[in-house]
Amino acid sequence: MTDMKRAAVLGASGYTGADVIRLLLDHPFVEISLLGAARKAGLPVDAVFPHFAPYDLPDFVSVGDIDWGSADFDVVFCCLPHATTQEVIKDIRDVSDVLIIDLSADFRLRDPDVYAEWYGGPHKAASLQASAVYGLTEIYRKEIAEARLVACPGCYPTAALLALLPLVQAGLIDPARITIDAKSGVSGTGRSLKENLLFTEVAEAMHPYALGAHRHMPEIEQELSVAAGGLDLKISFTPHLIPINRGELLTIYVEHMGDITTEDITACWQKAYNKEAFVHPLAGATVPATRMVRGSNHVVMNAFSDRIDGRSILSVALDNLVKGSSGQAVQNMNLALGFAESTGLTQAPLFP
Amino acid sequence: MTDMKRAAVLGASGYTGADVIRLLLDHPFVEISLLGAARKAGLPVDAVFPHFAPYDLPDFVSVGDIDWGSADFDVVFCCLPHATTQEVIKDIRDVSDVLIIDLSADFRLRDPDVYAEWYGGPHKAASLQASAVYGLTEIYRKEIAEARLVACPGCYPTAALLALLPLVQAGLIDPARITIDAKSGVSGTGRSLKENLLFTEVAEAMHPYALGAHRHMPEIEQELSVAAGGLDLKISFTPHLIPINRGELLTIYVEHMGDITTEDITACWQKAYNKEAFVHPLAGATVPATRMVRGSNHVVMNAFSDRIDGRSILSVALDNLVKGSSGQAVQNMNLALGFAESTGLTQAPLFP
Amino acid sequence: MTDMKRAAVLGASGYTGADVIRLLLDHPFVEISLLGAARKAGLPVDAVFPHFAPYDLPDFVSVGDIDWGSADFDVVFCCLPHATTQEVIKDIRDVSDVLIIDLSADFRLRDPDVYAEWYGGPHKAASLQASAVYGLTEIYRKEIAEARLVACPGCYPTAALLALLPLVQAGLIDPARITIDAKSGVSGTGRSLKENLLFTEVAEAMHPYALGAHRHMPEIEQELSVAAGGLDLKISFTPHLIPINRGELLTIYVEHMGDITTEDITACWQKAYNKEAFVHPLAGATVPATRMVRGSNHVVMNAFSDRIDGRSILSVALDNLVKGSSGQAVQNMNLALGFAESTGLTQAPLFP
Amino acid sequence: MTDMKRAAVLGASGYTGADVIRLLLDHPFVEISLLGAARKAGLPVDAVFPHFAPYDLPDFVSVGDIDWGSADFDVVFCCLPHATTQEVIKDIRDVSDVLIIDLSADFRLRDPDVYAEWYGGPHKAASLQASAVYGLTEIYRKEIAEARLVACPGCYPTAALLALLPLVQAGLIDPARITIDAKSGVSGTGRSLKENLLFTEVAEAMHPYALGAHRHMPEIEQELSVAAGGLDLKISFTPHLIPINRGELLTIYVEHMGDITTEDITACWQKAYNKEAFVHPLAGATVPATRMVRGSNHVVMNAFSDRIDGRSILSVALDNLVKGSSGQAVQNMNLALGFAESTGLTQAPLFP
Repeated sequence: MTDMKRAAVLGASGYTGADVIRLLLDHPFVEISLLGAARKAGLPVDAVFPHFAPYDLPDFVSVGDIDWGSADFDVVFCCLPHATTQEVIKDIRDVSDVLIIDLSADFRLRDPDVYAEWYGGPHKAASLQASAVYGLTEIYRKEIAEARLVACPGCYPTAALLALLPLVQAGLIDPARITIDAKSGVSGTGRSLKENLLFTEVAEAMHPYALGAHRHMPEIEQELSVAAGGLDLKISFTPHLIPINRGELLTIYVEHMGDITTEDITACWQKAYNKEAFVHPLAGATVPATRMVRGSNHVVMNAFSDRIDGRSILSVALDNLVKGSSGQAVQNMNLALGFAESTGLTQAPLFP
Repeated sequence: MTDMKRAAVLGASGYTGADVIRLLLDHPFVEISLLGAARKAGLPVDAVFPHFAPYDLPDFVSVGDIDWGSADFDVVFCCLPHATTQEVIKDIRDVSDVLIIDLSADFRLRDPDVYAEWYGGPHKAASLQASAVYGLTEIYRKEIAEARLVACPGCYPTAALLALLPLVQAGLIDPARITIDAKSGVSGTGRSLKENLLFTEVAEAMHPYALGAHRHMPEIEQELSVAAGGLDLKISFTPHLIPINRGELLTIYVEHMGDITTEDITACWQKAYNKEAFVHPLAGATVPATRMVRGSNHVVMNAFSDRIDGRSILSVALDNLVKGSSGQAVQNMNLALGFAESTGLTQAPLFP
Repeated sequence: MTDMKRAAVLGASGYTGADVIRLLLDHPFVEISLLGAARKAGLPVDAVFPHFAPYDLPDFVSVGDIDWGSADFDVVFCCLPHATTQEVIKDIRDVSDVLIIDLSADFRLRDPDVYAEWYGGPHKAASLQASAVYGLTEIYRKEIAEARLVACPGCYPTAALLALLPLVQAGLIDPARITIDAKSGVSGTGRSLKENLLFTEVAEAMHPYALGAHRHMPEIEQELSVAAGGLDLKISFTPHLIPINRGELLTIYVEHMGDITTEDITACWQKAYNKEAFVHPLAGATVPATRMVRGSNHVVMNAFSDRIDGRSILSVALDNLVKGSSGQAVQNMNLALGFAESTGLTQAPLFP
Repeated sequence: MTDMKRAAVLGASGYTGADVIRLLLDHPFVEISLLGAARKAGLPVDAVFPHFAPYDLPDFVSVGDIDWGSADFDVVFCCLPHATTQEVIKDIRDVSDVLIIDLSADFRLRDPDVYAEWYGGPHKAASLQASAVYGLTEIYRKEIAEARLVACPGCYPTAALLALLPLVQAGLIDPARITIDAKSGVSGTGRSLKENLLFTEVAEAMHPYALGAHRHMPEIEQELSVAAGGLDLKISFTPHLIPINRGELLTIYVEHMGDITTEDITACWQKAYNKEAFVHPLAGATVPATRMVRGSNHVVMNAFSDRIDGRSILSVALDNLVKGSSGQAVQNMNLALGFAESTGLTQAPLFP
């Protein structure tokens, strides 16, 4: 075990933290050396996550107590809340060049003005922004392999961009006329104590939220704008809360450029993803469903003709905690540490 | 009890049948005189629906065994499968002018060619089509009060049309550019034995279905076309299966005509529905949610600005088994029998 | 409407409060005149319970702001937290003899020492305890009709006692050897913000809780001890949290006295409950299920032979928010105000 | 890959089959060479299990079409329905000594009379019964390592026996006074088309089933009787259907022998299982919960004092599809093929 890489997981008491732990426990080349969680410092892991009781894991420590200068981690996963993250990463970077895989939103937006507009104030580590690579693995694979700070995409942007980027890059669809109707399981909201996240409020119910105002919008727009050659795009994006734990489903309404057909969309995806281990355009009329990906790092997608001429309906499903956050984070770590990209991510979906 | 109106419920062993029974049990002026169900004939009601064990209800009989000529029902609810219904109604009408409230799709489409296209063959009681009134209560109230055959709308069309018809009639939105993303609980699929409706397949999962091909499309188009002054419209409609029992949520993306705003949409709804007992445009930024209407005949709706200029996002929620089918059916019966429209429908939503 | 009785609901922002409101909205002779809720004072009802938006209800007020001396309520429902209730009721009683229907645990236990042992300290309104009637309707009907303070039973005791009291009174089962395995939906835990009640923690999961220490134990023991002629009984009671909103299911393992059989148990129940509107021993081998009672005031029960000789298995199901709390509270109000007992409680169960 | 062991999975279109596939896909030393499923013969795997679309798996074949004499499998998993299995295994054994891991009930009961009593008729391969080893891994580890036919226990017996066998063997509890209240997720019922397994019937609901008559009873009694030194025991066992996909929870009420305490039970378990990878007596008052084991091969258990003197309450949780069937099957295969016992079974639980 002497050659194992050493990982620290910060913000390890939340759900994305838990899924990083879950995946690393099955990773052959990485061991978990530190679990950071401010309010849970001093507790054993099974006091916070009883399902880890059978495993040998370190107790939680306070992030503020870590001496980053003398620590010898190979990778740090930041599963901290938005805004908190940037200060912690700044502290780390002041004394260490350790690989940082950030699962928060803090380094996803390249334009500081856009960050300030959507996150309520100026960024506190803006100088590090330039060094951050947007961690959408299949698109920025080369950059991630060289990066020391990877800003993993949000769960919705991961699904939306994997479906849309190849189509916009190929000029198949109108980037200014994209309507994304998203449905997410509840784990995407995190483990915070809010009345509207109680079982009794969520079960046997559904509703849209953050209408016209969800923070994943600028992130999707940023990447689509690049793909569209620098246009300043706005997209329509409406998320809904669905009473399941894991799973995210996007139904995307797009308008064709010129005379292209739904088959052209499928062909474009096939070409873009035919060598990918985790991105799967489905054959024929198979309908994407979240049960196809539960607990796994897979993304499934398909395209269907809309009844209105000149439009297609794209359907994309992933597990918001895996490919939508922690799985993609481990995938990025694999790239940056030089492991095969799917190491530790080969678990098949859990169905039923 | 001698003045009680007598109701027969055909197809009473399915979920819409059960909800008609549930509502009539609480109706002060109507009693259930007959329950028809082919495959359950001879069984007591609690062998099929144990939750009705405390109630005094007739045993199931075979629909074919009923002598409609000598029967003295005041109203017949047809909760039979599509296509089966038309033959039964033809048999009834040959010998009786009893009020028929049909919950199937058989008499919703006025154009026989459209029926044949979507339902796989010619209609077998086309001569009765002209006498059928489309049972969207708030829109066709006068006609329903005079009708002897009411074709209750599908659950999706009820939600879609209540939101869209006033806006199209007022010329506020482009009727040719309507995108409906619908999410439904599982009871909307009925009680048929299909592998994909097993708990294990549906729970902790979601997916779209019938992409570009759902039979509620022509029904929505028919009514919107009338409202749009006879245009031949096509709409985009994509339903999704969500792991809840009851509840339907529509997110509708519309494009404004001219310089209208989202506020104009809200104002239009307020004017159209300010005297309605069951249709509720919500105040301010309150987000419609299925938990607001569970088990009740209410519909809630609201409109939100889209991030793409010149568009709005409409959100509508109802209980697919109540306002979406059996509740609206009772509401229509009330009209046609001369009772106050909300008689027996005053139960408040069940939350949590 | 001038003859309508006036009701105040205190603690109206919780789930039992909401269900009292729901039931009173459909009650022909009672109107809701006041809604009390400390932390929500000043808010309209739909800010706390959006599903009541269609109804005309008073805004929430602070309980401390009510002048009980000059108020003219006919009934006060106390849906306040345990321990808080006793002080509020003492304040009311100091100046008013209004009928109080208490849904908390504060006046259920007759022995102040038992109260102090289980609720962490002495009772603050012990002088009122003697005037309180235990509100298990079918057992204490006469006393409730005369009462001014009704202490409604807990949800578990309601189910347990309705099944067990007739059997213990008749000497059919050994009162010292009763094992109750209870399963409850999440609404029984209330609306408090606890991590273990988040959707993500509860859904797709189950576990026992309060093992050997649940506060409903002494309440069940108190009533069984009376029925057993004053024995000092201890029962075995283990509740479990199940991922549903509403519904409570008790599986009770009992040992026969002498040579009695399971049929004797059924016969005893039939005799005890054959005129009851809400308590239903089921016929034959019909298995009680929570879906038979959802949203209704019904209780269903049945008895089955155990494989171990001389024992039976009792199964009881009710809706914890209706017959288990708010429905029984309204039933008790009906008795105390002189209405027919099932007034406003005739809604059939909601299935599916 | 030339050294990979070759596995056939029969009855691969059901849920236990799917979980054998899921686990073998992640097994480093075994490859799936054949998938048998009568009614799905000829179909690709993703037509039956879309979640396996990303994997390279053989199409389904008819079990009757397999030439067992010339086949070169190293292991055959039988996930076939009860009664069907014995004939298939007889056919295989007539021509081949391949290792057979049977997940059905056909070879679990050693006494042919007991089999006939509970399964409706005489066994059709009784001669093979003597060669079958009961596959409760932690108890029959040595025998399984030598076996060619392993009869994996039912899900309920696995949980019950792991908790009870050490206690009965040590004489700590009365084997004639055991009451097992079991709760199971729906996947335990399989993928068969039954109305009572539809989402709409099961969700937001719960009920007991097979009262006094569940087929797992004789299996539990058989093993407990051996542990009790040959007593002819009867147990009380009542299962309940709970609306979750995976997870099984047993609450077991036991009576102490002599003056033993709950702590003695815990100590007995600690001694029995302190070297086990998958069986975990929990520390302190930690309550077992199904969310601790979801998707994993772990079992968690703990013991609590009952309020009735001289009794304890045992709580046990496992995933019915993993340790309760397919995981234990793979664990047994590992033993019989000479691999480390936890090979391919190291996935951590999936929470949330």
